[in-house]
Amino acid sequence: MEVTNRYVVIKAHVDGPPKESHFEIKSEVISLELEAGSEDTIVKNLYVSIDPYQINRMKSYSSSQSSINLAAPVNPGEGIDTYGVAKVVASGNPEFQKDDLVAGLVSWGEYTVIKPGGLLKKLDPMGFPLSYHVGTLAFSGLTAYAGFFQVCKPKKGEKVFVSAASGSVGHLVGQYAKLLGCYVVGCAGTDEKVALLKEKLGFDHAFNYKEETDLKATLKSYFPEGIDIYFDNVGAEMQEAAVSNMSLFGRIAVCGVISEYTNTGRKASPDMIDVVYKRIKIQGFLASDFLNIFTEFLSTTCDHLLTGKMKPLEDISDGLESIPLAFVGLFYGQNIGKKIVKIADE
Amino acid sequence: MEVTNRYVVIKAHVDGPPKESHFEIKSEVISLELEAGSEDTIVKNLYVSIDPYQINRMKSYSSSQSSINLAAPVNPGEGIDTYGVAKVVASGNPEFQKDDLVAGLVSWGEYTVIKPGGLLKKLDPMGFPLSYHVGTLAFSGLTAYAGFFQVCKPKKGEKVFVSAASGSVGHLVGQYAKLLGCYVVGCAGTDEKVALLKEKLGFDHAFNYKEETDLKATLKSYFPEGIDIYFDNVGAEMQEAAVSNMSLFGRIAVCGVISEYTNTGRKASPDMIDVVYKRIKIQGFLASDFLNIFTEFLSTTCDHLLTGKMKPLEDISDGLESIPLAFVGLFYGQNIGKKIVKIADE
Repeated sequence: MEVTNRYVVIKAHVDGPPKESHFEIKSEVISLELEAGSEDTIVKNLYVSIDPYQINRMKSYSSSQSSINLAAPVNPGEGIDTYGVAKVVASGNPEFQKDDLVAGLVSWGEYTVIKPGGLLKKLDPMGFPLSYHVGTLAFSGLTAYAGFFQVCKPKKGEKVFVSAASGSVGHLVGQYAKLLGCYVVGCAGTDEKVALLKEKLGFDHAFNYKEETDLKATLKSYFPEGIDIYFDNVGAEMQEAAVSNMSLFGRIAVCGVISEYTNTGRKASPDMIDVVYKRIKIQGFLASDFLNIFTEFLSTTCDHLLTGKMKPLEDISDGLESIPLAFVGLFYGQNIGKKIVKIADE
Repeated sequence: MEVTNRYVVIKAHVDGPPKESHFEIKSEVISLELEAGSEDTIVKNLYVSIDPYQINRMKSYSSSQSSINLAAPVNPGEGIDTYGVAKVVASGNPEFQKDDLVAGLVSWGEYTVIKPGGLLKKLDPMGFPLSYHVGTLAFSGLTAYAGFFQVCKPKKGEKVFVSAASGSVGHLVGQYAKLLGCYVVGCAGTDEKVALLKEKLGFDHAFNYKEETDLKATLKSYFPEGIDIYFDNVGAEMQEAAVSNMSLFGRIAVCGVISEYTNTGRKASPDMIDVVYKRIKIQGFLASDFLNIFTEFLSTTCDHLLTGKMKPLEDISDGLESIPLAFVGLFYGQNIGKKIVKIADE
């Protein structure tokens, strides 16, 4: 049986803010049957993750780039891999059977052919919506959990600031922090998001950074005794303001730098004199370094979800063709919570 | 018996680069005898430490300053405390006897009256010159030792970059790193210093940063496989260049920010995308947090000195009146190694 597989590609490298016109949808005819002896797995994608970091893979890598190739590049015209949930159509890999639900590295497409050794595992939804397994119970959740607990090493009662606090990771960090007994303040870019953080997610305070003219003073007002932990999703001016308001031995987990991904704003210049005297630690991390605690993360988070102590925010668009706009929207703060595109029904 | 005590003060707060004219020498008549019942200790200062961080205490503290008072302010017209080695003239404190050698918090003056509870301890020179006990075997040494071993957590064979590498702390860091079996490159601001690092102190390479036009490319040439550890004494552009050249899981110990203390240069804007993807840790520290390892530091360092494996660099000026120029010179790179002023013979 043959089908038309539609998938999203970039037309050329994307070096500034992304636009829908940077993308196009390509089609190919693929067979849903495997050749004899193939160990491939063909999956039909159901839900795929839409993440800001993909922009770093779409850039042209010039000599001005860092010496280390930071992110596997996405080439124009080629499929773009992403985390997602899918259903097995055919498999030559003995691990998978037709109709198995799986989660792993699929693509911004309707179907993905996954080679043996690819990042794919059988998925037990455990009664949760499949979309939870794209973000909250997958890498967005692990990023929040590992970044907060392992990188920031929080203690009960500490004062925590989260930027992009209604984003895929931020809204989970704030909830983990509240459950630990921390004082939590988040910032976001619309009044609607701010209300959500305070009223639905239980943040102690939240503010709309776009309405503030003096971020240092704003943070000072929410943290008169200083910030113990800053979970940084944005970089730039907000990081500077946070450093200026950190307490002694404050910790900053640098999770993302969305304001700097598109080279549109200026970079953070945190005051290094503060860093020295206040013994501040600024640490970058990736969730993939913490796969060793995935089981702990999953079990803790499932408990919180089942007891209603954590509320995941999801922002789901419908259909493959909505991917470009969904992705572009991340850079304009259009998502609330984890951005996901639903490709097909189970 | 009464004597004239001369001491150095600032005339007013110093907010830009320091000049000799910011300072003056004041005199007072003091008694070298204690009143009955006094627990004070009067010491005659022999060697005093001259450190860049003092500039941060001399600034006017305005509302633009950080919420935490980072450094105990120095007030115009008042004596300036500093670490040093001294001899006891009279003591009502049973810990000290006349003629005891002591080390601790004295002042930029000929005599210091130290209250009970002040930071002062009896000094056993252990056969080393007294000046060693002002820097190499005191806070400069502990800063290098703790910053390198505790903050950077180095492993044999790692690649280490040290800025201000001929300075009071940097030249010791480089030698500790070489003794551990690291590859070590330092930068300094004159060809004379560069030669010293390579020929006398055993650095693998050293360069004069003032002769380089592209610091990122310079570091790339010395660290084609990346920097594992950057011991940062300067901040600014050099920190940016180092971040750009760090290896995965690289560590930056921020010890000092001399290029930013006087607000003359621009601040560091390390690339936070590098920080995330390379999981870089940037950590400020103060030696005073590591007093728990002072004994280990002292014993290790004494061994290295006795066996000739470490060579301290000292830059000693003579006489109280040389203090202002000695201090100002720190900000123009005029010192080679630990800057000390000898106030009097033992």
